[in-house]
Amino acid sequence: MTSDPLVVFTPSGKRGHFPVGTPILTAARQLGVDLDSVCGGRGICSKCQITPSYGEFPKHGVTVKEDALSEWNAVEQRYDEKRGLKPGRRLGCQATVQGDVVIDVPPESQVHRQVVRKAATARAITMDPATRLYFVVVEEPDMHSPTGDLERLERALRQQWDIEAVRADLSLLSKLQPTLRKGKWEVTVAVHKDHTDRVAQIVEIWPGLHEGGLYGLAIDLGSTTIAAHLTDLETGEVKASSGLMNPQIRFGEDLMSRVSYAMMNPGGDKEMTQAVREAINDLATAIAAEAGIDPELIVETVFVCNPVMHHLLLGLDPVELGQAPFALATSESLSLPAREMDLTAINPRAQVYILPCIAGHVGADCAAVALSEEPGKSEDLVLIVDVGTNAEILLGNTSRVLACSSPTGPAFEGAQISSGQRAAPGAIERIEIDPVTKEPRFRVIGSDKWSDEEGFEADIATTGITGICGSGIIEAVAEMRMAGLLDESGLIGSAEQTGTSRCIAEGRTNAYLIHDASAEGGPRITVTQGDIRAIQLAKSALYAGARLLMDEMGVDKVDRIVLAGAFGAHISTKHAMVLGMIPDAPLDKVSSAGNAAGTGARIALCNIASRSEIERVVREITKVETAIEPKFQEHFVAANAIPHKTDPFPELAKVVTLPSPSFNTGGDDENSGRRRRRRA
Amino acid sequence: MTSDPLVVFTPSGKRGHFPVGTPILTAARQLGVDLDSVCGGRGICSKCQITPSYGEFPKHGVTVKEDALSEWNAVEQRYDEKRGLKPGRRLGCQATVQGDVVIDVPPESQVHRQVVRKAATARAITMDPATRLYFVVVEEPDMHSPTGDLERLERALRQQWDIEAVRADLSLLSKLQPTLRKGKWEVTVAVHKDHTDRVAQIVEIWPGLHEGGLYGLAIDLGSTTIAAHLTDLETGEVKASSGLMNPQIRFGEDLMSRVSYAMMNPGGDKEMTQAVREAINDLATAIAAEAGIDPELIVETVFVCNPVMHHLLLGLDPVELGQAPFALATSESLSLPAREMDLTAINPRAQVYILPCIAGHVGADCAAVALSEEPGKSEDLVLIVDVGTNAEILLGNTSRVLACSSPTGPAFEGAQISSGQRAAPGAIERIEIDPVTKEPRFRVIGSDKWSDEEGFEADIATTGITGICGSGIIEAVAEMRMAGLLDESGLIGSAEQTGTSRCIAEGRTNAYLIHDASAEGGPRITVTQGDIRAIQLAKSALYAGARLLMDEMGVDKVDRIVLAGAFGAHISTKHAMVLGMIPDAPLDKVSSAGNAAGTGARIALCNIASRSEIERVVREITKVETAIEPKFQEHFVAANAIPHKTDPFPELAKVVTLPSPSFNTGGDDENSGRRRRRRA
Repeated sequence: MTSDPLVVFTPSGKRGHFPVGTPILTAARQLGVDLDSVCGGRGICSKCQITPSYGEFPKHGVTVKEDALSEWNAVEQRYDEKRGLKPGRRLGCQATVQGDVVIDVPPESQVHRQVVRKAATARAITMDPATRLYFVVVEEPDMHSPTGDLERLERALRQQWDIEAVRADLSLLSKLQPTLRKGKWEVTVAVHKDHTDRVAQIVEIWPGLHEGGLYGLAIDLGSTTIAAHLTDLETGEVKASSGLMNPQIRFGEDLMSRVSYAMMNPGGDKEMTQAVREAINDLATAIAAEAGIDPELIVETVFVCNPVMHHLLLGLDPVELGQAPFALATSESLSLPAREMDLTAINPRAQVYILPCIAGHVGADCAAVALSEEPGKSEDLVLIVDVGTNAEILLGNTSRVLACSSPTGPAFEGAQISSGQRAAPGAIERIEIDPVTKEPRFRVIGSDKWSDEEGFEADIATTGITGICGSGIIEAVAEMRMAGLLDESGLIGSAEQTGTSRCIAEGRTNAYLIHDASAEGGPRITVTQGDIRAIQLAKSALYAGARLLMDEMGVDKVDRIVLAGAFGAHISTKHAMVLGMIPDAPLDKVSSAGNAAGTGARIALCNIASRSEIERVVREITKVETAIEPKFQEHFVAANAIPHKTDPFPELAKVVTLPSPSFNTGGDDENSGRRRRRRA
Repeated sequence: MTSDPLVVFTPSGKRGHFPVGTPILTAARQLGVDLDSVCGGRGICSKCQITPSYGEFPKHGVTVKEDALSEWNAVEQRYDEKRGLKPGRRLGCQATVQGDVVIDVPPESQVHRQVVRKAATARAITMDPATRLYFVVVEEPDMHSPTGDLERLERALRQQWDIEAVRADLSLLSKLQPTLRKGKWEVTVAVHKDHTDRVAQIVEIWPGLHEGGLYGLAIDLGSTTIAAHLTDLETGEVKASSGLMNPQIRFGEDLMSRVSYAMMNPGGDKEMTQAVREAINDLATAIAAEAGIDPELIVETVFVCNPVMHHLLLGLDPVELGQAPFALATSESLSLPAREMDLTAINPRAQVYILPCIAGHVGADCAAVALSEEPGKSEDLVLIVDVGTNAEILLGNTSRVLACSSPTGPAFEGAQISSGQRAAPGAIERIEIDPVTKEPRFRVIGSDKWSDEEGFEADIATTGITGICGSGIIEAVAEMRMAGLLDESGLIGSAEQTGTSRCIAEGRTNAYLIHDASAEGGPRITVTQGDIRAIQLAKSALYAGARLLMDEMGVDKVDRIVLAGAFGAHISTKHAMVLGMIPDAPLDKVSSAGNAAGTGARIALCNIASRSEIERVVREITKVETAIEPKFQEHFVAANAIPHKTDPFPELAKVVTLPSPSFNTGGDDENSGRRRRRRA
């Protein structure tokens, strides 16, 4: 039995005997305890802070005496004076073992610390990004044994950090020699390790110890908006989130109109590629400024997007995605230098990772949702619906996961709606219609009051009431149905049929007037018959996609539903269910995942193993192509109606038990002339 | 014992039994016989041509009957009509085994055919370039099993050619989909395999079978000239060779003046990098035009160059190479995309390979000489001297190889010589001085006659006599010594001392007049005392370098000498030895290797295994740094004289036995004020 002192680490519980004089960092490394260090134990990075505990620890069978560690030394003193050490903290590379001791590794000293997501599901991300900082001391050149500076840096990384096979491109090489000399042969390098091959890339080099941090961007590139999260690659903290409109909108509102633009205009795909790349550069510049960091510290970017955005981002003509068999140029994940995509606003050697696409219509955004929500790890059968301009749908459990995409179009985002607008101040976002008086009350972005509450007018004095956003139009249609203003087929009744002068004739159909400021030169906000039809088409597509997956799985109900994207953030679950956007389920089995695609991007940014995981998961997902399934058309047609529901939620009881009207105008409903926009 | 027919291949002698009906190509592959095929046996590329032999073959123990192969088929008939097959030839993928047969694989059907160099040593290069063509049939996309076009191409390469882990950059990806469809899912791809890792890169893709060939450039980037050889990567044939002046000359004649330019002028290194890259692009464009090929078919480039050129080519500031300890930014070989070096004139996905540097003063050009001349495989102790603006020197045998570089300056190339010029029409390239009359006769580039021969005047009527090139000045100095016009210290005698009015006073020293056209407004071509000193400095440096290596090796003579570069091509060996440029050796032990650095580049271009070989060899070479060896200075000073030689060659006997004069003018010789240009 050894007489060396016992060292016990918490919270891991790892323990071992070490000779007197062993630095705590060394003991931690030998036991595989997760204790950070950038400088390799040289007492300059302070990442290895630990907290010794003293006294009796019956649980560990140890008594820790006051002199269990070496005395506070000059290095710790200097660090404490310069930056401050929390009381009780020591530097793990300086404090050495003198007797039995219990050492706590606080979360911020763990390399693979866990970051708890703010979303409801509270899933933790283990920090293990592809790019990390390493401090190294490099041998000086020797004429008698001539080797290049790069080769000596490589040797240092191999010997001091076990990093093999590093590469450096010419731009890094060109700053290598001055940086080594400026740092007096001590430098910090940021090394990117690819998750598939053994090659490591030196992304950046700084003289001495770099303490400016290291950042990554998780980008959710949508058809309508581009959202970016600037993430600290050491702590996982989101330093800033920002978004902007996808400038490709000027080439076409929805995906297929952009594909058409590329088909009709030679070089049109190149125009769209350039537009989106410029926007991403602008966004990166803006978000770095917002967080107050140098954009050159952004060394990684992860993208999630649908297949058309994917191709246009990469500079690939999306024409094949517009026609059967919807062949992707490449479906697997991509790791490439950011400069190959003209992303010049960030570090010139930054690396990009793009999640794999699942199929020609089911993109990396859906893969990101799968990474975030993990349907394949669910014991229950879970339906995950992510609504953007297209809807991505996943259905599965531990035995099998299915995926499809459904062409909902942009109606759920307020586009192609007569008074529609995007969610911005002035937009109606919530609405209630009194089932008796048929009068509306609503809320507008920019005020937390309802339109009939005191102070509302003052709140919106500057913005006015400008239109209806996506969540507003969904609520409006559902409320109109519940207030008896719509029949099951979706027809709006006339003033006579409904008994309210808010139902006004517009050509051969009717519209419902929500707000009229035309007397003051303001907008007249209505829900037209065309708006109802657009929402019906969109919700039918969404519902039909979910049903198709349920057919494939051989089930007619699901255990739970996860709503992601705009749903969780803005769209009211109860109104969505009234409309028949999603299959019925008990309300306590419906949860919101927030921006699951964006979360998936953040996970891939912060944890390199998740990249291999999602690549494996995507290979195993069963892809269902809605465009070629006759059953999709059947479900689509069947889902067009807005049925008189049985009581899905108790609180809706008072409205859904009202008699369901049926309006038969004899007028030609424009619906018959409309077909789904997408796919020949 | 099997009753299947026996197939014997020549020249390999490989043999085996195969079932009736086996295609000859299949039999060849199973036996590992080197039989080419780009289309994979589909009867369209015609690379697998073979010649069956009929009759008795006692040596192989076989009798081959007339019906030993299947009958001439429609595929062969069509090919013969379209392109013509040589009599007796069959397509190996069409002809099948019917009985015992002897099959000859002609050289042009061998994948690893050997290309015999034209140089005297007749070393063969086995063709095995890094980039090769592969014809593949790719599966069409299937909506029910969606995969990207790239993934199906990858699968085809894996299944049809055993090529794993291919990569494609975005520019290749962007042409993938249209090319696959244009070729109706049959395409030819050029795949580059790196010699160190397992990654293969798709460099180019063509619809159907590509028959336009594939080319590479071997570039010898010298301080003064850039020479390129456009090489067919299938046959090894050099389709065109071309060269131009290095435009960096305007920033400094020799290496150290370019390093000084970079040190003195902020951004000066970038100017020089841009200049040389533009020149290489111009050269590539010109050489492709000369050979009549599309420059996009140039998919590989190999560079050899000295360390300063290496850094300036790569965009690395060469400042560290101008001062001790002469640290290279990187010394190992480099494999990188050509576009990273702005080489835009060739295929946008072309790959560059740069041989490793040996030390801070001993570059990739010296490594290329080692690859070409293989001192490490020599039983004899061989001294290899490559003279350019700097001289690279190798000494070695199977036990050990040493290398150094010697700062000769550009005098051997005619630079820094009063009447010097580069080797171009009008330049005096050879000279003889009558030891009795002291009168010169000479030859001029552009005429094959001596100046005292009939027709000489007519030959040079257009160019005139414009100056002396490098080989001319070396011969002039050696001839002046042999004619008694110079003493051992290198002083030119006066007209009185030498007895010829061609020795004319110029200030305090004398000059020798070779040609005077000043009466007609032409040049007056002399060899001045300054010219003699420049040549003495250069030859002393060269000799001292060789002696230093011999000291390190512990020998005072070598078994043989190989002269490379300008030496073999232009400089007369006997004059070089009279001058004392190289150590004495029997004339039959002195050979010329031509442009050995250029040959090394061609070897690395044509044979991928040679890249690993030279990398290993360079690691094992002992580097000798002349700048820090006190003995180098000793040898340098000692070598300054032009001694009165004992008879090195019989044919020189008549001159070297003349009495050796000694001129003592008392005037101050500028030599005392001159120092070696290079190194502080």
